[in-house]
Amino acid sequence: MSGVEIVALTGGVGGAKLALGLQTVLPPGRLACVVNTGDDFVHLGLHISPDLDTVLYTLAGLSDPSQGWGRRDETWTFMGVLGQLGGETWFRLGDGDLALHAERTRRLEIGQTLSAIMRDFRSRLGVASELLPMSDAPVRTMVHTPAATLPFQEYFVRLRAGPAVRGISFAGAADATPAAGVLEALASPALRAILICPSNPYLSIDPILGIPGLKNALRASGAPVVAVSPLIGGQAVKGPTAKIMRELGIEASPRAVALHYGDLLNGLVIDAADRVSADGCGLPVLVTRTLMTSEADKAVLARTTLDFAAGLKSRR
Amino acid sequence: MSGVEIVALTGGVGGAKLALGLQTVLPPGRLACVVNTGDDFVHLGLHISPDLDTVLYTLAGLSDPSQGWGRRDETWTFMGVLGQLGGETWFRLGDGDLALHAERTRRLEIGQTLSAIMRDFRSRLGVASELLPMSDAPVRTMVHTPAATLPFQEYFVRLRAGPAVRGISFAGAADATPAAGVLEALASPALRAILICPSNPYLSIDPILGIPGLKNALRASGAPVVAVSPLIGGQAVKGPTAKIMRELGIEASPRAVALHYGDLLNGLVIDAADRVSADGCGLPVLVTRTLMTSEADKAVLARTTLDFAAGLKSRR
Repeated sequence: MSGVEIVALTGGVGGAKLALGLQTVLPPGRLACVVNTGDDFVHLGLHISPDLDTVLYTLAGLSDPSQGWGRRDETWTFMGVLGQLGGETWFRLGDGDLALHAERTRRLEIGQTLSAIMRDFRSRLGVASELLPMSDAPVRTMVHTPAATLPFQEYFVRLRAGPAVRGISFAGAADATPAAGVLEALASPALRAILICPSNPYLSIDPILGIPGLKNALRASGAPVVAVSPLIGGQAVKGPTAKIMRELGIEASPRAVALHYGDLLNGLVIDAADRVSADGCGLPVLVTRTLMTSEADKAVLARTTLDFAAGLKSRR
Repeated sequence: MSGVEIVALTGGVGGAKLALGLQTVLPPGRLACVVNTGDDFVHLGLHISPDLDTVLYTLAGLSDPSQGWGRRDETWTFMGVLGQLGGETWFRLGDGDLALHAERTRRLEIGQTLSAIMRDFRSRLGVASELLPMSDAPVRTMVHTPAATLPFQEYFVRLRAGPAVRGISFAGAADATPAAGVLEALASPALRAILICPSNPYLSIDPILGIPGLKNALRASGAPVVAVSPLIGGQAVKGPTAKIMRELGIEASPRAVALHYGDLLNGLVIDAADRVSADGCGLPVLVTRTLMTSEADKAVLARTTLDFAAGLKSRR
């Protein structure tokens, strides 16, 4: 683990794109991704880790380029038959994806940790970057809406992020500890920067930062912490980030993202479309193109962000 | 259930062929299949009922014609990925097949009975025949070999029926009762015959006959009981029937099959290739072609067997 130069905190689709860019521009084994597991849930008896799997598939070159989640060259026979037999089909599981969930569930049931399982999976799929769940303990993101408090997937997939969000909490966080490898990566002698990927700050990054000991380890690392804003022109590329910010009474702007991460941040990367709202962030800001459409976009944003971080000092 | 005219006791592939023939020649809803569940097992956390599913797929016109088990137009993405991730692949599960196991497992876990689940499944798949597990209670076929006592699938699939069989037992049988619908079918006022399909007498039919109350219900039905021998020229069409008979010190002949079922039988259907060994069966024997290759073969054997049974009286 001592070779880790960059730690990336990430959620699913948007964060995974930057993680892939980072993996592309770094030598093998120098990137460690710390991934949100607050979205994990048990469905059809299977332990599903949507963000870990999105990052895994993306870094392994196996992700479906059209939807950002799931596997390329996937088949959907299982879902078709399940629907025919009256089963629950609101969470779409491809046939190959299902195998990963089944094998992970089997291993969890015989006592292996999630971090050990993911280490083996990424190794089998030829991924040189570390892929670390934020914790091996269950932490579950709960979304408080006017009508009910919902487990994340109920809110996000079944209800398509429709209900207004009044608050978000992380069940189990108080008793959780960082997964094996997380503190080691943050203490790597080679560490150059910690990047907060352009994932939803409230739903994808806050669960990670809520693991006791994590924020302190970030501060203690001595490495600059740089966030890439998930907003482009006040909107998320994908997902409900801007909608949730409005519902929580927060302006959907880079300034609000900077305020949210507070003194943890040493720098912020924002899109050129948000240039006018960058004033008042109170920390170094890099304005660039953050939209990642092509593989080249991902590598360029990764390189640009790394160069920006290299010019920053940790304020701590 | 009062419309049931024919009850068929059956295991997997061979028995399912005759069941399909019977369904073809009978009006809809007049056939009830009582199916072996001694081969059921839990694999990858899923409840799998190989014989029930083979009969279901066969009667629904969904079975894979090339191998006799599993589904036609199946995909195998799950198995491919599972192998890549180091999972257990000795039991082959197609993607569509898997959906049936997952949905059955979910329903069992919320307290539905196997018979209720299969009734819903066959209804959804448009199967008019009754499809009854022999019992809703777990009965597990155990194969005693020189080295170990093996659960059926370990013996049959993983070890490919290799070890010599010294004995067979049915764990849980003493405490089991016939599944909902089984005794009703055998008491149907319209009942004309009970057929024992050409399945392995020791591994597929004995578990059914071992459910307390089943043999008495057969005898009390007043309908003639006719078995179709699974042997052709002293060999099974598929599977280890003849091998097991030799290992148990039993001659692989129709006579031995007749002796095995004993006074339960009123008639035996054998293949022309076994004509010479038909002497000494001690009951009416019909010699015909029992090999079922085409759909027509299945219907013809079904019709021939029903006609033979119609000419027999129950001895009881």
